[in-house]
Amino acid sequence: MAHFRTATALRRRGGDPVFDTELDPQWTIGTKLHGGYLLAVLAKAAAEVSSHPHLTAISGSFSVAPEPGPAVVEVEVLREGRGLTQLRARLSQGGAPCTEALITQGVLTEGDAWWSGVDPVEIPPEQDCLPVPADGGGGFRIGLMDVVEQRLDPAAAGFAVGQPSRKGVISSWLRLADGSDWDPVSLLVALDPVPPISYDLGIAGWAPTVQFTAYLRGLPAPGPVRVRMRAGELGGDRMDEVAELWDEKNRLIGQATQIAAVRLP
Amino acid sequence: MAHFRTATALRRRGGDPVFDTELDPQWTIGTKLHGGYLLAVLAKAAAEVSSHPHLTAISGSFSVAPEPGPAVVEVEVLREGRGLTQLRARLSQGGAPCTEALITQGVLTEGDAWWSGVDPVEIPPEQDCLPVPADGGGGFRIGLMDVVEQRLDPAAAGFAVGQPSRKGVISSWLRLADGSDWDPVSLLVALDPVPPISYDLGIAGWAPTVQFTAYLRGLPAPGPVRVRMRAGELGGDRMDEVAELWDEKNRLIGQATQIAAVRLP
Repeated sequence: MAHFRTATALRRRGGDPVFDTELDPQWTIGTKLHGGYLLAVLAKAAAEVSSHPHLTAISGSFSVAPEPGPAVVEVEVLREGRGLTQLRARLSQGGAPCTEALITQGVLTEGDAWWSGVDPVEIPPEQDCLPVPADGGGGFRIGLMDVVEQRLDPAAAGFAVGQPSRKGVISSWLRLADGSDWDPVSLLVALDPVPPISYDLGIAGWAPTVQFTAYLRGLPAPGPVRVRMRAGELGGDRMDEVAELWDEKNRLIGQATQIAAVRLP
Repeated sequence: MAHFRTATALRRRGGDPVFDTELDPQWTIGTKLHGGYLLAVLAKAAAEVSSHPHLTAISGSFSVAPEPGPAVVEVEVLREGRGLTQLRARLSQGGAPCTEALITQGVLTEGDAWWSGVDPVEIPPEQDCLPVPADGGGGFRIGLMDVVEQRLDPAAAGFAVGQPSRKGVISSWLRLADGSDWDPVSLLVALDPVPPISYDLGIAGWAPTVQFTAYLRGLPAPGPVRVRMRAGELGGDRMDEVAELWDEKNRLIGQATQIAAVRLP
């Protein structure tokens, strides 16, 4: 099994902010590498050249889906400030840009929020939720589910038996299968959970992400995290999805939004 | 008065995707150029080199605040696809990168959504809302309010008299003062309205945007738009804000999220 740490390992080329990496075939959905995993590789490279330790914001644009195997990450520092470092990073394969990201590094703490307008997630205990199998049915393999243990709120799992709730909300528990705790970089994987929210609205087919943005808000407590994925609006063959993530101490530690392509009925 | 069209005008340097522009001193808050205005300049440049007509997504990172005056925009096409073009763009001044953006161009329509999970905005009629003056008090000038006519929901205007509602929601009506209708690019200005939502939570001081992301979902009907700005969570000297925008036909035509720096009490 590919540990998150080894699946995102980088080898720096001398003093330049250029890194070689080996994209891991297990962090996939069907034959496509998972978007949160690709952004995690970029974020790890950005951290290597930043004087601020933690990922605090990242926006990525997915133009070409890279294959598992060798890839190159190039980082450029846009500004090194007192409280944060702003960078851009590119993942390319065979000279073609695949994923481009804008990244802000800062300092995260284990402190509590000063004010929150976010509704807390409601989800049954982890053991009462349903594991998502790596076998997606019909020969469709979700390799990601071998390295991420995800358990769905039964209230939103009806799509699996042809009875989607049509509420546009799917909540789940998530752990890394290698037993390691989440950190701000690996949380990018948790912020883009499986399946796309369109499943809960009765729409079959995958929903490739076009652009994705995440904010990391605090250092996660050890243990599993809970994510709530909500649909915003679907129209014009596009949908937006909002993900929010809580740790074991009930702190909102991550947020994400994405715009994805979807084939509407 | 600086019309939006002239304030975002570009001169292309021959065949390269490099443009000269003149950042307009009226599109400012205090001495700082407005973030939505800067992204609009980048989006206009991206449209010039894309085969798809409409801005559909943009993520920007604000590293250095440029001064009004000459600036350069460079665009790179990441991928030209069948349904969309993905690009990156950089605004720089004196050779220093100021604003970097990831942009997706596509095709927007005047059609309705297929499904929506977004609560409709609630706001009194435009004439019952309160104009935001360009004089921000204490010598603080909001030049943007000379070129954008913004009227605040009175329910959220209490901060102006020291009585913030502390609900974390501010809604307003917006028109371009030059009389032109909104389009997907100018809506970037409307998606970053004044003041920051922290005012409604009783926190004084401006809140500079670190990263900002917008999705444009449809072509706006002529007339004013309504925007609702909501605070997500405030903690660790950061806050996230979500903006949603409706046109005269009550269609959700734009959405945005930003993470901003804020000095918490």
